[in-house]
Amino acid sequence: MADTKVYLLDGGTLVIDGYHVFWNRGPGGEVRFPCYAVLIEHKDGRYIFDTGYDHAHVQRVLPFEKPIQTREQTIPGALATLGLKPQDIDYVINSHYHFDHCGGNKHLTKACTLCHAKELEASGNCQPFEHLGYSDLTFHPELARKQKNPLPPDPAMDIYTPRFETLKGDQEIAKGLWLFETPGHTAGHYSLMVELKGRRPMLFTADACYSKKNMDLMCISSFHLDPVASVKSLHCLKELAAKHDAELFYSHDAESFATYQKGPAYYA
Amino acid sequence: MADTKVYLLDGGTLVIDGYHVFWNRGPGGEVRFPCYAVLIEHKDGRYIFDTGYDHAHVQRVLPFEKPIQTREQTIPGALATLGLKPQDIDYVINSHYHFDHCGGNKHLTKACTLCHAKELEASGNCQPFEHLGYSDLTFHPELARKQKNPLPPDPAMDIYTPRFETLKGDQEIAKGLWLFETPGHTAGHYSLMVELKGRRPMLFTADACYSKKNMDLMCISSFHLDPVASVKSLHCLKELAAKHDAELFYSHDAESFATYQKGPAYYA
Repeated sequence: MADTKVYLLDGGTLVIDGYHVFWNRGPGGEVRFPCYAVLIEHKDGRYIFDTGYDHAHVQRVLPFEKPIQTREQTIPGALATLGLKPQDIDYVINSHYHFDHCGGNKHLTKACTLCHAKELEASGNCQPFEHLGYSDLTFHPELARKQKNPLPPDPAMDIYTPRFETLKGDQEIAKGLWLFETPGHTAGHYSLMVELKGRRPMLFTADACYSKKNMDLMCISSFHLDPVASVKSLHCLKELAAKHDAELFYSHDAESFATYQKGPAYYA
Repeated sequence: MADTKVYLLDGGTLVIDGYHVFWNRGPGGEVRFPCYAVLIEHKDGRYIFDTGYDHAHVQRVLPFEKPIQTREQTIPGALATLGLKPQDIDYVINSHYHFDHCGGNKHLTKACTLCHAKELEASGNCQPFEHLGYSDLTFHPELARKQKNPLPPDPAMDIYTPRFETLKGDQEIAKGLWLFETPGHTAGHYSLMVELKGRRPMLFTADACYSKKNMDLMCISSFHLDPVASVKSLHCLKELAAKHDAELFYSHDAESFATYQKGPAYYA
């Protein structure tokens, strides 16, 4: 059986304010940052951790985030460059259900979807200040149809009935694939660690830590449900990285992302 | 016995960013806003609700907030314009212990200090992201001396040993003076309602609601411990105002403040 391989699939960029990235600290001004998905070729199947944003959704609901995304930066496009089809994905793991982490789920029609139980619940019952974050519910058509102000129907939704497997606690979901609870940014946020044969483990923070500077400053992002838990999760990630000698991969860090290998190159 | 009178004591202005005022919403850019203390002449004694900021403290610790404060806008100066001395104040009530609400406490050396029990505890044991908020501990010299990076000693501290009376729950602390729990901005935040003979009750939100626009948008400020509780407190204030036919007085709202009567004029 082949060793585990990890591909980073560039998902394009968005713009938020520096005060969003560094809570109450800034400096203010536009920050353009990357979004990406993580494809894991594992002996138990193909996993994707997070699926980026849907360009049409952002244009429609959050145009002020100025999405830039090529066809190759969509989930189907990025998979195609690896010779894969969306139907080849067995599992989607979502760190959380903000629109820029689940926008591509709807294309992965054969996959079983894994997430934290609290996150699935929160996505359909969020706080008023979380409505934009949880605005893309196409990952869960049943929830999307219940939205108070439903968006125009998305053709993809009609053919997509996802299966969910909800989880709680830290756990190894497959050999060398670890999910760690890192709540605060949202109610049920997971970070992912992948153990590889030929290198240090990769610890994908997802939005528990946008960037290296957030970690260095121990400064959380301004998008959060619970800032006290968010700070704890930052410390937790730092400790996990030390304990496992893992390399931290940040979710929205243009500077770090420039140094990451992107598909079709891979980590193994 | 004379009827209750309420004086608003202008305490000068500070600058924060629009992203601080309207959490995640902005727009960004400098916002200069007022701070003020509320003097209540009551048959049981003279109360002051919040005491503004200390100019020297802000210049030393948060100069980026660009304090502008005249001598008449200090607590001793503002009291002097009413023919009062700091020693004439019997009670200080603090909505919370952020520096811009307790900077003048140290002058009120004869007063008994009332606050929420949770707030007094939090002020000496705050979250890392609250350190600047709780940076002026001169209201409690014993706590101030325990600070990790103590500031240069303030001469006023040596002569000031405050008495505290901590409270919990909503309560009428004196005839017509009501404290309502409005947590979220901080751990133990109180808002104050004053019933008057000749007009609608005055409901001082303190930092549970900076401005009318925060209330209209149901948008909390970016300085908070618990955003879920903060939103609840906004709703709570709205309901209290409706229930008691009270007028809301916001803590940091330049536009509203321009319409308020300031001392030596008063409400009664």
